Amino acid sequence: MSTRAKTFFRKLDLANGVVEATHGTGGKVMAQLVEELFLPAFDSKELRARNDGALLEVGAGQLVVSTDSYVVSPLFFPGGDIGSLAVHGTVNDVAMGGARPLALTVGFILEEGFPLKDLARIVASMAAAAKAAGVPIVTGDTKVVERGKGDGVFINTTGVGMLPAGRVAPSAERMRPGDVVLVSGTMGDHGVSILSTRESLSFESELLSDSAALNSLVELMYRAVPDLHVLRDPTRGGLATTLNELTHHVGVGVRLREKDVPVKPQVHAACELLGLDPLYAANEGKLLVVCAPGDAKKLLEAMKEHPLGRDAAIVGEVVEDPECFVQIDTTFGGARILDWLAGEQLPRIC
Amino acid sequence: MSTRAKTFFRKLDLANGVVEATHGTGGKVMAQLVEELFLPAFDSKELRARNDGALLEVGAGQLVVSTDSYVVSPLFFPGGDIGSLAVHGTVNDVAMGGARPLALTVGFILEEGFPLKDLARIVASMAAAAKAAGVPIVTGDTKVVERGKGDGVFINTTGVGMLPAGRVAPSAERMRPGDVVLVSGTMGDHGVSILSTRESLSFESELLSDSAALNSLVELMYRAVPDLHVLRDPTRGGLATTLNELTHHVGVGVRLREKDVPVKPQVHAACELLGLDPLYAANEGKLLVVCAPGDAKKLLEAMKEHPLGRDAAIVGEVVEDPECFVQIDTTFGGARILDWLAGEQLPRIC
Repeated sequence: MSTRAKTFFRKLDLANGVVEATHGTGGKVMAQLVEELFLPAFDSKELRARNDGALLEVGAGQLVVSTDSYVVSPLFFPGGDIGSLAVHGTVNDVAMGGARPLALTVGFILEEGFPLKDLARIVASMAAAAKAAGVPIVTGDTKVVERGKGDGVFINTTGVGMLPAGRVAPSAERMRPGDVVLVSGTMGDHGVSILSTRESLSFESELLSDSAALNSLVELMYRAVPDLHVLRDPTRGGLATTLNELTHHVGVGVRLREKDVPVKPQVHAACELLGLDPLYAANEGKLLVVCAPGDAKKLLEAMKEHPLGRDAAIVGEVVEDPECFVQIDTTFGGARILDWLAGEQLPRIC
Repeated sequence: MSTRAKTFFRKLDLANGVVEATHGTGGKVMAQLVEELFLPAFDSKELRARNDGALLEVGAGQLVVSTDSYVVSPLFFPGGDIGSLAVHGTVNDVAMGGARPLALTVGFILEEGFPLKDLARIVASMAAAAKAAGVPIVTGDTKVVERGKGDGVFINTTGVGMLPAGRVAPSAERMRPGDVVLVSGTMGDHGVSILSTRESLSFESELLSDSAALNSLVELMYRAVPDLHVLRDPTRGGLATTLNELTHHVGVGVRLREKDVPVKPQVHAACELLGLDPLYAANEGKLLVVCAPGDAKKLLEAMKEHPLGRDAAIVGEVVEDPECFVQIDTTFGGARILDWLAGEQLPRIC
């Protein structure tokens, strides 16, 4: 690169500056934002090549591609922010395809007037999350909308990964009656953390989002059990919604045991206060896995060896059920249906 | 799939309905939007598998990944809409990497209250554009934000493609003094069309956006000339900005001839009225290509054989210039510098 490319009129004012329309219209000001904020943070050789796209070497096989836009409100929450969430969420979606994530793309939609200080904080958090997950950010895009036409920042991340040779992709339709359902940890942490922040509730111990990248946990699981039937991250709508999507797609039922589903006591308490069910609350660092009955115990042991799987549990089974119900045997000896709700009234949880 | 999955309370009201918060929160209402609107339109086997990501078979080689968010305003404009633009723009970015586009992902950020009728029109337009370009939409995501926190619809598309074996990826740093610069057609059509629509200007002949997918043109070019040094689509900021980005990155200059740069007479006229320079106005169906001098004539002939390259022209050369200037020899015998502007004051052009 020529030295001239770096000669901007004055340095970007990351302490007091705000997003301006020109940051999104092409030209020198946009180039400066890329040069002084995005490139140093994300620092991948693909970004440095300054092409419209990134070039990645891949072997022959099956590529997994997944996309998510993040509109979480508030942007900063206990345990993370929209930046780390945008990395974790998409890394997880690729990992739930059974793949090893290779790279992420990032698209920012910024609202005019958004403080560059906050943007820099979000970018640093994305960079740290990407580095920790071992997945580089290889290409990106920035758009700016007028005040009142956005909400600070929205982020899209898209992830690509490769299914290791010989691994059968986990998929909804591989779920069979008799299969066992496990979760990797406590349910509802992210949703309840966001909602408590919005409602300004405070608890004795802070409710942290569980936002985390699950790709290394997934690899450890595959080393123990080479064939996982279904992998999902129960995000929006939580465990109950994700299971309902699966049962209705496949035409089976699921039977859970309430006493076995891990929920943190403070999440339980907050849910009572907020009138929520933790099984419908979002998770951003948990997975559910469906496997053959003979594999369940070995899989559970493997999951428990990973820091993100310490609270893993076998929570239920896939059953034959033409009604596609997700049922739960309650701690009090009864059973109830975890209905497929029209929609949780929890917008912008991720 | 079980029949139950399709049993929604009542059909989505595409004629009079609007986007609601529940369309983005997970659950049955979101599933219905996917089932009744997105799936029938995009209809790819990957989407039908209902997994978080899509699985694509690839051969060993170089994968090109590119992402763009689209926030164009107005959503519908002469010659296209945000949906077709979101397909063309990202297909083109992948093609500018020298790759054959394989698949697109789509992420919608919808504003509460947005008419489903308009969403359906945009989705149909995306589906038609994807089909025409031969690039399926394989996975997606939908988020909803409150009224006043968005602007109808924003769309992110991310594209993946493979560089055919033996093809050297075009890249900025492959630009050399002596190389020839060509464009595939008239400059500024998209930018001027959008701006005229916004300003409610009317001209004798309608100014249409040039929005189009360039992947088949690129393949035809590679058949004629196997080594293209640089490929770019001059979108935001137009030809002048794209060339400045290249020259400042590489440390060379570019010398254009004004008389050879194709511009439609009505675009010229509109630009005079609006105080714009067509060389800084966005294009969404044009490319610029830099090649070795010995290849230029053959390349031009090949481009002219394609409907999207009919007006292609050799417009200038790469020169040695430590100042990295993009200069243009004017029709009146002088020369002027096409400066790297701070930023065009044309927000939301794409």
